[in-house]
Amino acid sequence: MKNIALFPGSFDPFTKGHHDIVARGLTLFDEIIIGIGTNINKKRFFPVKVMEKLIKESFEENDQVRVISYDGLTAQVARELGARYILRGLRNTTDFEYENAISQVNRYVYEEIETIFLITSPHLAPISSSIVRDLYRYGQNVDEFLPYRLPAELATS
Amino acid sequence: MKNIALFPGSFDPFTKGHHDIVARGLTLFDEIIIGIGTNINKKRFFPVKVMEKLIKESFEENDQVRVISYDGLTAQVARELGARYILRGLRNTTDFEYENAISQVNRYVYEEIETIFLITSPHLAPISSSIVRDLYRYGQNVDEFLPYRLPAELATS
Amino acid sequence: MKNIALFPGSFDPFTKGHHDIVARGLTLFDEIIIGIGTNINKKRFFPVKVMEKLIKESFEENDQVRVISYDGLTAQVARELGARYILRGLRNTTDFEYENAISQVNRYVYEEIETIFLITSPHLAPISSSIVRDLYRYGQNVDEFLPYRLPAELATS
Amino acid sequence: MKNIALFPGSFDPFTKGHHDIVARGLTLFDEIIIGIGTNINKKRFFPVKVMEKLIKESFEENDQVRVISYDGLTAQVARELGARYILRGLRNTTDFEYENAISQVNRYVYEEIETIFLITSPHLAPISSSIVRDLYRYGQNVDEFLPYRLPAELATS
Amino acid sequence: MKNIALFPGSFDPFTKGHHDIVARGLTLFDEIIIGIGTNINKKRFFPVKVMEKLIKESFEENDQVRVISYDGLTAQVARELGARYILRGLRNTTDFEYENAISQVNRYVYEEIETIFLITSPHLAPISSSIVRDLYRYGQNVDEFLPYRLPAELATS
Amino acid sequence: MKNIALFPGSFDPFTKGHHDIVARGLTLFDEIIIGIGTNINKKRFFPVKVMEKLIKESFEENDQVRVISYDGLTAQVARELGARYILRGLRNTTDFEYENAISQVNRYVYEEIETIFLITSPHLAPISSSIVRDLYRYGQNVDEFLPYRLPAELATS
Repeated sequence: MKNIALFPGSFDPFTKGHHDIVARGLTLFDEIIIGIGTNINKKRFFPVKVMEKLIKESFEENDQVRVISYDGLTAQVARELGARYILRGLRNTTDFEYENAISQVNRYVYEEIETIFLITSPHLAPISSSIVRDLYRYGQNVDEFLPYRLPAELATS
Repeated sequence: MKNIALFPGSFDPFTKGHHDIVARGLTLFDEIIIGIGTNINKKRFFPVKVMEKLIKESFEENDQVRVISYDGLTAQVARELGARYILRGLRNTTDFEYENAISQVNRYVYEEIETIFLITSPHLAPISSSIVRDLYRYGQNVDEFLPYRLPAELATS
Repeated sequence: MKNIALFPGSFDPFTKGHHDIVARGLTLFDEIIIGIGTNINKKRFFPVKVMEKLIKESFEENDQVRVISYDGLTAQVARELGARYILRGLRNTTDFEYENAISQVNRYVYEEIETIFLITSPHLAPISSSIVRDLYRYGQNVDEFLPYRLPAELATS
Repeated sequence: MKNIALFPGSFDPFTKGHHDIVARGLTLFDEIIIGIGTNINKKRFFPVKVMEKLIKESFEENDQVRVISYDGLTAQVARELGARYILRGLRNTTDFEYENAISQVNRYVYEEIETIFLITSPHLAPISSSIVRDLYRYGQNVDEFLPYRLPAELATS
Repeated sequence: MKNIALFPGSFDPFTKGHHDIVARGLTLFDEIIIGIGTNINKKRFFPVKVMEKLIKESFEENDQVRVISYDGLTAQVARELGARYILRGLRNTTDFEYENAISQVNRYVYEEIETIFLITSPHLAPISSSIVRDLYRYGQNVDEFLPYRLPAELATS
Repeated sequence: MKNIALFPGSFDPFTKGHHDIVARGLTLFDEIIIGIGTNINKKRFFPVKVMEKLIKESFEENDQVRVISYDGLTAQVARELGARYILRGLRNTTDFEYENAISQVNRYVYEEIETIFLITSPHLAPISSSIVRDLYRYGQNVDEFLPYRLPAELATS
């Protein structure tokens, strides 16, 4: 049986910090499915379709990685995808408390699921998606924080 | 190639919280080596040899688990044992900061090593080895916190 | 003079974690008033009137508990109700910092007021109202997290 | 060359906690520029122009302090103003993690910039702008938390 | 039945922060027993007998307060004293995690016991016993941190 | 008047993380005095005299930096040295709470003193002196973590 992990997030945008977690997780899992969680109530900055395409490009040489988008409970989606693991990165103590709560609930929804954590590499830990959005919004070059090149015209707003 | 993980700790004593992490980790790794870190400068309460035997008993039906004791750098020991992963449990934010630092250093010592974290199940999180020692020292029955039965006469002091 | 405590919150919804705090607080206070804080600027998921009724049901055999709803400063409401204590549950360190700030301000508004904290039982700590809302929104059965049975059709949106 | 620091914030409103940081920072810098960050997406409670005037009044005897408002990246604004330092107050651990991330990003935007932290005096630490807004909204006198007197009619909503 | 609380600690020395918690707790309990936990393995700085006497003096006008010393498990001692409550002060998030663990264990030892927390007043929060000891050891006057006057010659070492 | 800062620590050993804080602090202060705090009760691993010499070497081209050792209260020593500032690095939230308490006490001892914090650069944050000691003790090369070359035979134990 294949060891499949779901790596869920809003990825608005997907950063080098996210890429680092997936790349390191690949030694552990046969397949990692990057799941872009969408939610009609939350307005995105970078469109889902564009982001899906960019993430795929950043792993194009690796057929262990798939990218999907979904609207639903993460643990339910994992079950439907045959993923028994959820992969998450931890950057700091605030992350920890949130992930602690979420991982317990996921196990309630799908009893056999197990959440696996990797700690974000220190030099990447300060890069959050919200900070990248702020920099981008004010015209900064954000290439250094992303594992792909952003297309010239992209943002939704 | 087998996926081997080292689960290091002083395990003075090994608790149900530790057992939970190993049991959950077994779906992910082909083998888990429980490594009792010893250090001549730190006096133990429960003797290493006794603890080694008790831990073995608590996994006796499982041939994916081995128990060893060691004195040295955890990452070096992992490399010598052919273990590319270190498995750790996180109980709270204080654990997180300590583990964050240690995991970076381990990677410095043994570049390919990856530390994998599971969050301790909430009902087991308050059980620390030091609290079990305190209860035992004052004559409390601690069976509820341990995955094995303590022998009648055991403590070193 | 009766020892009265106000247990304030948005309770959207009231969970087993909240119920646990009230039940444990009842040994300490003569009366606990559960106060559902409402705020025209914040849209609720579960209607106040329905929640008020459900909380009452969950304590129906206990005449030490009252349920009210209010829009205003918690400390002012406590004073008007003759409650010298505010009862709060602490789940984790993020809760702690927020509660720390709020409790100082409450004392500024109503000098004699004292905030009393109980730590949420560990197996209930991961249950937050926002997580229950998410589960409910996606069609999960949430009975296990609530001290009452939700009516068939309930949510506002 | 003058040592200039930018003290950025939304200051909605500017509190005694903020005043404390600026006053203590004045021994270290030749000039401190208080920068009210504005953002068309975030609705303010206290109008920028009024707040700018009130902050100026509270430092009117001190010609080392200037007050401006800006919409943009803090580090870019600092560079344009000739400020090599960003001054920040830390109240608690939640502040710390946020500031940690922001300070790294600021250095990315403006390599030579250095963020200097002072810890808020303990008796002022529980005073946050959001708590002052809540008190004000419900008709409480908030003079005790502010280094100036609010005009009779002020709030935007 | 009287509501009795045990306020345990090593109180080496008892500070104004401790005094504040007891004084505020007195509105809630009929009696508070201050329990100086002693432990042959931990060397004290201020002798137990002297500290016991000084604490008594600082509450001499209040017959709701008793002072004892004990060597044993806090929850067991509480049960023997007829105290159903343990009273604790919280200063910061590090305190919180420790207290969280301890309170769960106490309930294991004595099922009916309940730990009640008050948050230390902010201006007293930075005063820890270990800092007072350091100041004293280097000849500083520490009267400002203590609710009593230290005798001229006191320290054990 | 010269702006002098004391940078206190046990520096057992002085790491690249410490060096980073001093180097960045030099833009702000006219002089930084690195103070190696010694304490007869705490046994060191690296001898004070050797460490003093190594730190001096690592700043040998910079006459704004001095190195001393002291046994006493940091704030008292600062006053005697004419240093109105204490410079400290913050790595994580545990550091923050400790520094918060210490900085308040320092101000009690020497009213005019101000503690200035810089956040440790993320890639250096996991390097603590205690981890470097552990690596060294087990024969690892630790040159990568230190701003100087250790002499061949050095450790005290």
